[in-house]
Amino acid sequence: MPEAKPDTTSPPQQRLQNDLLLHVARREPVERTPVWFMRQAGRYLPEYRAIRATADFLTLCKTPVLAAEVTIQPVDIVGVDAAIIFSDILVIPEAMGMELLIEENKDGPRFPKPLRSAADIGSMKDGAADRLQFVYDAIALTKKNLRGRVPLIGFAGAPWTLATYAVEGHGTKDFAVVKEMMYRDPAALHVLLEKFSRAVSAYLCAQIRAGADIVQIFDTWAGALAKKDFLEFSLRYIRDIVQRVKEETGAPVIVFAKGANSSLVEIAGTGCDVVSLDWTVDIGEVNKHLGRRVALQGNLDPAVLYAPPEKIRDEVNIILRAMEGAHHIFNLGHGITPDMPVEHAKAMVQAVKEYKS
Amino acid sequence: MPEAKPDTTSPPQQRLQNDLLLHVARREPVERTPVWFMRQAGRYLPEYRAIRATADFLTLCKTPVLAAEVTIQPVDIVGVDAAIIFSDILVIPEAMGMELLIEENKDGPRFPKPLRSAADIGSMKDGAADRLQFVYDAIALTKKNLRGRVPLIGFAGAPWTLATYAVEGHGTKDFAVVKEMMYRDPAALHVLLEKFSRAVSAYLCAQIRAGADIVQIFDTWAGALAKKDFLEFSLRYIRDIVQRVKEETGAPVIVFAKGANSSLVEIAGTGCDVVSLDWTVDIGEVNKHLGRRVALQGNLDPAVLYAPPEKIRDEVNIILRAMEGAHHIFNLGHGITPDMPVEHAKAMVQAVKEYKS
Repeated sequence: MPEAKPDTTSPPQQRLQNDLLLHVARREPVERTPVWFMRQAGRYLPEYRAIRATADFLTLCKTPVLAAEVTIQPVDIVGVDAAIIFSDILVIPEAMGMELLIEENKDGPRFPKPLRSAADIGSMKDGAADRLQFVYDAIALTKKNLRGRVPLIGFAGAPWTLATYAVEGHGTKDFAVVKEMMYRDPAALHVLLEKFSRAVSAYLCAQIRAGADIVQIFDTWAGALAKKDFLEFSLRYIRDIVQRVKEETGAPVIVFAKGANSSLVEIAGTGCDVVSLDWTVDIGEVNKHLGRRVALQGNLDPAVLYAPPEKIRDEVNIILRAMEGAHHIFNLGHGITPDMPVEHAKAMVQAVKEYKS
Repeated sequence: MPEAKPDTTSPPQQRLQNDLLLHVARREPVERTPVWFMRQAGRYLPEYRAIRATADFLTLCKTPVLAAEVTIQPVDIVGVDAAIIFSDILVIPEAMGMELLIEENKDGPRFPKPLRSAADIGSMKDGAADRLQFVYDAIALTKKNLRGRVPLIGFAGAPWTLATYAVEGHGTKDFAVVKEMMYRDPAALHVLLEKFSRAVSAYLCAQIRAGADIVQIFDTWAGALAKKDFLEFSLRYIRDIVQRVKEETGAPVIVFAKGANSSLVEIAGTGCDVVSLDWTVDIGEVNKHLGRRVALQGNLDPAVLYAPPEKIRDEVNIILRAMEGAHHIFNLGHGITPDMPVEHAKAMVQAVKEYKS
């Protein structure tokens, strides 16, 4: 490699040894497809469970030395091409004043006092991003400990997805309460979404200033909405966040709006760099329409990892073949399940790394 | 109306007074859009709950006089343009030998002995359609009691959706067990799907012979599959069913593959007459691509019915405006929720009937 001239556009940290993911996000050519997977730090790793045995979930999020450690585990153990900071999307509503409970053996996180009125929404505090120093400390420590091996991904939940939890109070199948608010009192919901949008924008910018190389916006419940409602109640806020983050930091942004597959053109039109796809679309077909505007991420069915390693390789190859010559970050189409054998996660990563066109 | 000559292609029953739905299914012009809604007989109706208080769910399905009564209730109470026979998709696996439990206040139906091996699958009995006389009796009685007021819809579950219940043993969020079978032992799963496909074909033909005017195939869990897996493990069996039913009976067929929105062109290519859409797609956009091949059904977000009646009307009108001049059966994008006020269901039906272009 020729000696590099100092690059004044880079942050003052170490040059990355593996920056495949960032090159793809900028739609630059790379020698092979980078790979990571959603919720890659977590319950499927025995090394994670060993640390979790010593601290509850939120303590882990809020203790930078522990968060950094579990963030780096998959880089060491599974060999992924990027780390993603260990945290939770619900730290934003918590930092806006909502009590958040994440209990053992319960059905996911919950807010015991959900937002049910314009008055509840009005009581949500501004300045949430200033109360999340523990995340920025975890990012800074992770960057230091990664020693430039791979990029670090920051993230946040999209306003609509945050609103579903904040209004319902917990996970939901039918989104009855938040949709009732959406159809009965759309103005109140828009106030909440705008508050989340501002908080998330500031939060992602702060993550980048702390050292994150790229950020991802997770709209996990995008697929619950009719297309026109997705555009009105979710995507416009995502677009605002993308624009603010890019204007303020220049860092690349990934948008994952799970299930919003009727709106992929509109998602690509937010100005984001990468659109992340769930597993229900044919990524090659999507690339024909969007590949000139954005890079694509995804889209292996997480359940493929239940298959034997040779079958995992076959399924990985189908996607890689469809995306040859395209700008592609390999990933699952959603989070890895906690019961997944680590060897199967490794088989996926290895198949991506060994792919020959 | 001019005196009709005897029509030897019609079944010997009474001529229908309201056959809007059948005309749309055949892509013939109609004076207004017909409307019904999925799971229209059921828990949101006090008149249904009164009958349910006297008999458990499966008894209701298996007692023709009761099934016919709850089937007709929504025609009388809500004013829909079609009745759908009261039954459950899981009577097919039950008739193939699986013990089925539908208990009060539990999380849906379950099979205490799910299919986990090729041997389990091999033990599934042929001839299921011959053991479902109670359904045909309910259909015949419903037709008699409807006195030709509106058409009667028969239905069945698609093989893939039936397989998810039969293999998992109950409802599931991640489809881990059935997908593990799909990736580890696809041949075993194909044997099961083929068995379901034959049973469902015979079952739907028998429903039509008993008096059903049109049938709908429900693939509720189509959206759990990657596109290529949907084509291989679900749609090819749906296609076989559509072809057999149309060949044998000539009756129109509706296909509802919820969430399989990357495969709408392929669904329309099965030979079905109507494609039913969930609420995440823009029905007007879909009509531009498919409207010359099939009629469309749907696609109001069921949660719209939580809104006040004037908002329900607005949302109904948005869809009707997008489908002006097209072949369209109004419906929800999925089943009505049990907590829905009856007045809101009526508001939807009224809005469709009163629409002026």
